[in-house]
Amino acid sequence: MTLLNQTLTRIVPQDASAREQAKTRLDQLTMPHWALGRLMDLALDLAGMTRTVRPQVDRRVVVVMAGDHGVVAEGVTKYPQEVTCQMILNFLRKGAGINALARVVEASVLVVNMGVAGDLGNLIGHASFISRPVGPGTRNMAAGPAMTREEALRSIETGIQLALDLGPSYDVLGTGEMGIGNTTPSSAIVAAVTGSSPEEVTGHGTGIDDDQHRHKITVVERILARNNPDPSDPLDVLTKVGGFEIGGLAGLILGAASMQKPVVVDGFISTAAALIAYGLSATAGEYMIAAHRSVERGHQVALDHLKKQPLLDLDLRLGEGTGAALAMAFVEAAVRILTEVATFEEASVSQAIE
Amino acid sequence: MTLLNQTLTRIVPQDASAREQAKTRLDQLTMPHWALGRLMDLALDLAGMTRTVRPQVDRRVVVVMAGDHGVVAEGVTKYPQEVTCQMILNFLRKGAGINALARVVEASVLVVNMGVAGDLGNLIGHASFISRPVGPGTRNMAAGPAMTREEALRSIETGIQLALDLGPSYDVLGTGEMGIGNTTPSSAIVAAVTGSSPEEVTGHGTGIDDDQHRHKITVVERILARNNPDPSDPLDVLTKVGGFEIGGLAGLILGAASMQKPVVVDGFISTAAALIAYGLSATAGEYMIAAHRSVERGHQVALDHLKKQPLLDLDLRLGEGTGAALAMAFVEAAVRILTEVATFEEASVSQAIE
Repeated sequence: MTLLNQTLTRIVPQDASAREQAKTRLDQLTMPHWALGRLMDLALDLAGMTRTVRPQVDRRVVVVMAGDHGVVAEGVTKYPQEVTCQMILNFLRKGAGINALARVVEASVLVVNMGVAGDLGNLIGHASFISRPVGPGTRNMAAGPAMTREEALRSIETGIQLALDLGPSYDVLGTGEMGIGNTTPSSAIVAAVTGSSPEEVTGHGTGIDDDQHRHKITVVERILARNNPDPSDPLDVLTKVGGFEIGGLAGLILGAASMQKPVVVDGFISTAAALIAYGLSATAGEYMIAAHRSVERGHQVALDHLKKQPLLDLDLRLGEGTGAALAMAFVEAAVRILTEVATFEEASVSQAIE
Repeated sequence: MTLLNQTLTRIVPQDASAREQAKTRLDQLTMPHWALGRLMDLALDLAGMTRTVRPQVDRRVVVVMAGDHGVVAEGVTKYPQEVTCQMILNFLRKGAGINALARVVEASVLVVNMGVAGDLGNLIGHASFISRPVGPGTRNMAAGPAMTREEALRSIETGIQLALDLGPSYDVLGTGEMGIGNTTPSSAIVAAVTGSSPEEVTGHGTGIDDDQHRHKITVVERILARNNPDPSDPLDVLTKVGGFEIGGLAGLILGAASMQKPVVVDGFISTAAALIAYGLSATAGEYMIAAHRSVERGHQVALDHLKKQPLLDLDLRLGEGTGAALAMAFVEAAVRILTEVATFEEASVSQAIE
């Protein structure tokens, strides 16, 4: 039995009893009923995921998975491919957006080479760097499948194994990514899985202009026509129009769900990975927390497919796990509401007159 | 010259030069342009407010001002008035929603008696309690003015003085409140200041049903007809349809602005106070950060008047400063982006090809 299949069998629904106990307590807190709104909904979810009314959420990590994409040959982005590796160095020097925002919530940042085009051999051994390349970047998916089915499976299982390795050290996992060109496979995945048109799910990525945007839409159209990914087979979608970091994140999400740990899903690319994970196990969706609504236009389509409402809406479009890091503050807030606010009885506060 | 007038003369616009310097740096960060969206807008504001590209925002306090309201005699709320004092005890025992959420951002919580109906003499001397009552609750504004003009001025100046006293100890102030019945004066203030109808700005408060809601709207209509507050005279509005804690918060906001410190404005009641402050000094608006969009229907009307877009939208309707506390995480995030993220040059990352 493969690690993937083992993992899928271990993903079970949230615990209804812990949810119910949490709801009973939240209903009695010294405030008008459900007056902290979506934070209380989140508290229910966290109780259900972790199977306790006292969830542990203090040990946090954002896993930033990096990969390169052969499809950059089609001119879909305005940044050169070398930026993927340059940004990995920036992450490890703690100078990137994710480093700054992870500090706000005291989360660790781990960087994983899932398959970049450059040589990162000199980074092996760095405490925050993990080298698990599936290959030196994907092939150009406008000309054929991005990877083999074996590579797709390997990328997912690499992510699963990483989640399992991190499990003893962390309570909450966040997804992040870096990969020049990776909004293009993400748009292709969202279109393939949800049946939306490329135009509906292809945005401006790192900031291309309108002409470049029209071109990018035609590239996504060609990718889908050339590969014809099977929406009922998530591995086929990943194989044909995915990325190594996207497969890795899908695996990370599945691994977190199998350990009954919350996983905070960042923006557009992370949510494309979540679609692959969700296709393999809809139950895994019960462990996903949608961090924010990206400016990238396909993101809402993907969130709707997952039936998730994001916590934040701040016009972010950076990726790297920045939205996931920020949303971890709300995970902490939700748990503090559940565990630290007094009930009417505990505080001797008069209740509403009905 | 009164403390209020002195304070108003000290409120000056944000510093354009610090904003410009911040923008220059943010434009060069190792990310697609403005990819952290509204957090970068907030970083500009914080630089402008504090007149530096390295704003200090670590020392945070949420000031929870409490007051009672004679208008509860009209049956506008379903909680008994004694809950105001009971919740003050709950705040001081650290068992309320604001205590839990202030911990997320390591903010202090200070509770101020601006004028409750009960006796809190036994709390004087408590390290987190400040006693500055203007009176034992307001009069029933459905029958006449809520307070005298002298009391209105005193409530504002009490808030200003408190801000000035807190200035040396804190970098960021947050507004919070507790007062059974205080959505009713808030609705009346928002209607009076913005010219909206009572129906547009009167919500369900702590959770009244539809019949009670219709009744509450008619009470707000009567309040406005009886008192006819002058929208061009914020002190008249506060006198006739305000509350002591609302005046105190208006003063706190003005005091923060006069010290060039950011003040995070919580939900509906705090924003009603912000309208009073804004009426006295539109420039004070440059120091206000809108924390969240409340469920309370008049809140959006008030935010529009202030030309503010809130940072959070989580269906909160508790008050106490809970939204302000959470939003302080974004204030920290914005400053970290401005001060900790490397520029393309610093990190030797290739820039976009235009």
